[in-house]
Amino acid sequence: MTKLDISSFAAGSWVAPDSSARPIACAISGDIIAQAGNANLDVGSMHAYARDVGGPNLRKLTFHDRARMLKALALHLTKHKQQLYDLSFHTGATQSDHAFDIDGGIGTMFVYAAKGRREMPDAQIYLDGELEQLGRTGSFQGQHVCVPRQGVGIHINAYNFPVWGMLEKFAPTFLAGVPSIVKPATASCYVTHLCVKLMLDSGILPEGALQLISGGVGDLLLHTDAQDVVSFTGSAKTALMLRATPHLLENAVHFVAEQDSLNASVLGADASPGTAEFDLFIKEAHREMTTKAGQKCTAIRRIIAPAAHVDAVIAALSAKLAKTTIGDPRDKDTRMGALVSQSQRDDVLEKAALLATQAEPVYGDPDNFEVQGADATKGAFLPPMLFHCADPDTATHVHDTEAFGPVSTVMPYRDTDHAIALLNRGKGSLVASVITRDGDLARQMVLGAAAWHGRLYFNNADSMAESTGHGAPIPHMIHGGPGRAGGGEELGGVRGVMHYMQRTAVQGSPDILTAIGEQWVPGAAEHTGGPHPFTKTYHELVLGETLYTASRKVTLQDIETFAHFTGDTFYGHMDEEAAKANPFFPGRVAHGYLLLSFAAGLFVQPDPGPVLANTGLGSLSFMKPVSPDDEIKVRLTVKKKTPRTDEYGQVRWHVTVTNQGDEIVAEYELLTMNAYEQT
Amino acid sequence: MTKLDISSFAAGSWVAPDSSARPIACAISGDIIAQAGNANLDVGSMHAYARDVGGPNLRKLTFHDRARMLKALALHLTKHKQQLYDLSFHTGATQSDHAFDIDGGIGTMFVYAAKGRREMPDAQIYLDGELEQLGRTGSFQGQHVCVPRQGVGIHINAYNFPVWGMLEKFAPTFLAGVPSIVKPATASCYVTHLCVKLMLDSGILPEGALQLISGGVGDLLLHTDAQDVVSFTGSAKTALMLRATPHLLENAVHFVAEQDSLNASVLGADASPGTAEFDLFIKEAHREMTTKAGQKCTAIRRIIAPAAHVDAVIAALSAKLAKTTIGDPRDKDTRMGALVSQSQRDDVLEKAALLATQAEPVYGDPDNFEVQGADATKGAFLPPMLFHCADPDTATHVHDTEAFGPVSTVMPYRDTDHAIALLNRGKGSLVASVITRDGDLARQMVLGAAAWHGRLYFNNADSMAESTGHGAPIPHMIHGGPGRAGGGEELGGVRGVMHYMQRTAVQGSPDILTAIGEQWVPGAAEHTGGPHPFTKTYHELVLGETLYTASRKVTLQDIETFAHFTGDTFYGHMDEEAAKANPFFPGRVAHGYLLLSFAAGLFVQPDPGPVLANTGLGSLSFMKPVSPDDEIKVRLTVKKKTPRTDEYGQVRWHVTVTNQGDEIVAEYELLTMNAYEQT
Repeated sequence: MTKLDISSFAAGSWVAPDSSARPIACAISGDIIAQAGNANLDVGSMHAYARDVGGPNLRKLTFHDRARMLKALALHLTKHKQQLYDLSFHTGATQSDHAFDIDGGIGTMFVYAAKGRREMPDAQIYLDGELEQLGRTGSFQGQHVCVPRQGVGIHINAYNFPVWGMLEKFAPTFLAGVPSIVKPATASCYVTHLCVKLMLDSGILPEGALQLISGGVGDLLLHTDAQDVVSFTGSAKTALMLRATPHLLENAVHFVAEQDSLNASVLGADASPGTAEFDLFIKEAHREMTTKAGQKCTAIRRIIAPAAHVDAVIAALSAKLAKTTIGDPRDKDTRMGALVSQSQRDDVLEKAALLATQAEPVYGDPDNFEVQGADATKGAFLPPMLFHCADPDTATHVHDTEAFGPVSTVMPYRDTDHAIALLNRGKGSLVASVITRDGDLARQMVLGAAAWHGRLYFNNADSMAESTGHGAPIPHMIHGGPGRAGGGEELGGVRGVMHYMQRTAVQGSPDILTAIGEQWVPGAAEHTGGPHPFTKTYHELVLGETLYTASRKVTLQDIETFAHFTGDTFYGHMDEEAAKANPFFPGRVAHGYLLLSFAAGLFVQPDPGPVLANTGLGSLSFMKPVSPDDEIKVRLTVKKKTPRTDEYGQVRWHVTVTNQGDEIVAEYELLTMNAYEQT
Repeated sequence: MTKLDISSFAAGSWVAPDSSARPIACAISGDIIAQAGNANLDVGSMHAYARDVGGPNLRKLTFHDRARMLKALALHLTKHKQQLYDLSFHTGATQSDHAFDIDGGIGTMFVYAAKGRREMPDAQIYLDGELEQLGRTGSFQGQHVCVPRQGVGIHINAYNFPVWGMLEKFAPTFLAGVPSIVKPATASCYVTHLCVKLMLDSGILPEGALQLISGGVGDLLLHTDAQDVVSFTGSAKTALMLRATPHLLENAVHFVAEQDSLNASVLGADASPGTAEFDLFIKEAHREMTTKAGQKCTAIRRIIAPAAHVDAVIAALSAKLAKTTIGDPRDKDTRMGALVSQSQRDDVLEKAALLATQAEPVYGDPDNFEVQGADATKGAFLPPMLFHCADPDTATHVHDTEAFGPVSTVMPYRDTDHAIALLNRGKGSLVASVITRDGDLARQMVLGAAAWHGRLYFNNADSMAESTGHGAPIPHMIHGGPGRAGGGEELGGVRGVMHYMQRTAVQGSPDILTAIGEQWVPGAAEHTGGPHPFTKTYHELVLGETLYTASRKVTLQDIETFAHFTGDTFYGHMDEEAAKANPFFPGRVAHGYLLLSFAAGLFVQPDPGPVLANTGLGSLSFMKPVSPDDEIKVRLTVKKKTPRTDEYGQVRWHVTVTNQGDEIVAEYELLTMNAYEQT
């Protein structure tokens, strides 16, 4: 393969490596296959370009606009993913490793595209939580909003997932409306480079939304301010160095770190050898040791088993490791490929030697193992190495030394409290798993250990068919952990988007809040007097458009009729004496469902028109009982509009049903689908 | 007044000041009234006591338990608040200042007590957001949970609000289940000390929940780990020093800062002299300059007005300032009291001199002003000082120098973009206000400026009667801001509680998630076959208790009957041809409300019993149309139980309505109130 010149993409142009570039070796052959780095890269201009061009371009768009772009990018990358596979083998990764990195990265984009459409508005401002009424009448209210930070997402990524690592940060940043500057680790930056190039060449991205630094970051961090977010994945040492940068501290720059982690897996006391759970435990532990040759921040480093089952765990896991073919990752029979580099291999061996001072090696000899289809002396190969630490209470290295390769340690626990104490000895991790069918045990684990772990993964025979794996961060759930894991948080659906937005408390009158949030606030102006709102198209309806209906008397006969028709003869509706004895009712009252039904009868416009269907209701409260001969009437107001397809969108109506004394008897939200055009 | 010895409360005992104690002067008279500090205070033991005694005691309780205690504490403090008033005058505060500090602090406790009961579960684990289905069938799902951090809330507070500053941090920390160590600023620590003593003497608090450091913190921060939260309010300089403590950085200790802030208020272009809004603008600016003698982190430091109205603003504000009586805060006629100390007064004068290099003094002469009922040479008095900065684009000090006293600067703006640019020149503030009736302007302000401000406060004639004031942080809304304001966030209802909890992603089977969250997850075990669940008391019902009903055919006649009875003759129900043309319907379909009503008829147990009322519905989706002669049936399952009063609690039922092909046609949550005892 010709040596690749890995450029940076800076302020709209590709900048080739210069003489300061560092060589990059193939993990399999040790040959130099690429070079990256340019000492003259103007990172200050990159920052300014992102902030002054990319940010404004992105902020013009709505969340839905950006979500659609994410989907288009994901489809574009899907079409070209073979190119990424082909190149990525050189990092030592197997095809099944690519499923995590490349397919996983693209999958993350698809999830953010879907969540952006489903869970965020077609607007520039995101509303966080409910209205807060701050006075008696509601003339002054509060609403939390989130807006894009007016800065840059600076993503400093680890070498192990050159595609996923980039996309899992890019997707939420982009959806937030914030431009990204991506700086992948140099050892595998050629794969990230290809992915970025595919994304830029697609023509989908607004100008300035994505830039790439191949090589060193220079003084990029010194250009940051409080609107920027630095998101780092890598070693605790580097994280600390970056985090302590005086400029970042002085300017309250947001810094998110995802760093070392001594993740653990616990075998529940119920999951003894012979159970499906025991086999599952071994399978997950094996997968975490061997996927990406153990170069995963979420890999299981500590295997915590009931003392009685430690020998069985070691035996079963060793047997499975012995069947793991190590070799050229391009070979279909290879189960485990190479580490990313010789220096990474040396680092793992050094850490393993440290572990060996407090734990006994029980599987894997780095001086004697078979490598198929490659030269073990040139590639960065290692065998899986399993240790047994008989006394995990006095041992320290097994809880604080992360050998970032196919290395794990088995240790015994006495009881649940002991297992929890061992889990927490890691002083903060990304994920801990517990294999058990015991719900009480699971609950104890959450109460005892959740405070120290970003994710707790429970699995058993009921869930294993659909379980996503101990080590797989998925876009729906947060990724990150306290303490040693860096104290950061990423992903978690919309939560991950929020790290790139500022949450601001807004206070004002209903009209002011309606204008800001594009959502009608009770008390704001109502638009009445036009044609029935059900005769208007989605686009014709405006926020605050309101229908006041005529009133209707609810008679005792209505209640009787409804009760016998529906079968709902609850005593509160049918028996005056019994109803009176009830703390909620003054006597017989109308059914709540009768009120809803009569309300619909009052507000529905029966003829064909743009309202296609009533698809649901939200937050219905029956506030006050309706007695026979009370008269009810309805106010129906357009609260929010959300496009759903090319033909129709959802209209959320705010509905109050009031009685003859204008007291609210029921309040709810009505959901309809409304056509964009007259049908 | 006898000199007070201000003790610390450490590991269960009061520790008196020793010879290292610092003297504290009365702000009015300059006399030494108290002393605080003990060089031998064992802060390491305090930390251990909070972590090992207070934390476990608090974590045994539910959110509701802790909320009830907060309410009891708030009632207790209310009963004794005259003692706090009496003592607090010595800080220079007037009785109306006490409304912010003492009543505001107690009010914050009441709000957290109410929100803890209404918005959090009666449980130890808080569920954050919705279930995430992670596979096709739902056998493996995700749920985010929040659990108390297993550490300590260390609250380092400013001198200006000795009661509110303590309680606004204590309330959310306590509700989270985390013990507090409070370290008030020494200048006013005698007031905090009295409040803490009242709280401890009430006997309401669990052991270890609250400790107090009067004097220096010693090496407290060096005892922290990733489970602790250090929450600091004070100067940017001290914040930076603390934030940069290597121990905090190395251990990923959570650090929240609320520091300097050059808050601004903008007069909208529409709010010209003569409008109610202009008068409101002057009133708010005046209040922010004079309340607490301007010693408020949220006070308006920059008054930004349309160029044409700057003179009118200066004239109106100066006239109002001229009527502001300065003097002994105990005197009822006094409108503005003293600053907390002579050294604080000197600091304000120094900063004001800096402002004067770029802005013209237009009101207030510190060398010549009247003080009523006190000796101006002994007390820490200052007059309000107003500046006019004609060129705010070139000026720097007005945007970066916070004179923490009754000091503010008026500056002109040209247009909305210019006003936004000036707002953002503060590089991050706690709050900005805009006085306007113009919704579009409000929206532009949010889009342009929200990213730089923790709170945006809009006010006009519509909202002024109930508005809470530019400078008042209220417990419902977040308090804090990006950049210069420290990058932190407090309060905001439940959001403020979350800063003391760890958010953890939990994955597992429906049964496992049900056991953890005490909320039934679809797919988890159902308990069937007992008596009808409506015959069981609140306490007898268990999660997963399920009723399967008989089925009922929905005939065309039913649809006709319902339509004519209710008046809902929507064409989708009544007109086969028109319904067929609708993209959602195969032909005429049953009304959604008919399905709900029939469903109730199928599941309701009519006789008097523990179910008192159906109080509402949530998240109703009509998933699939029901055609004439389809047969529907219902599954009703206990999802969640929440106690509400001493007599009854809320039961949230998960309901699905299915058709003859077992397809779900409707899904919703039903809310009932259920008696604890058989009625």
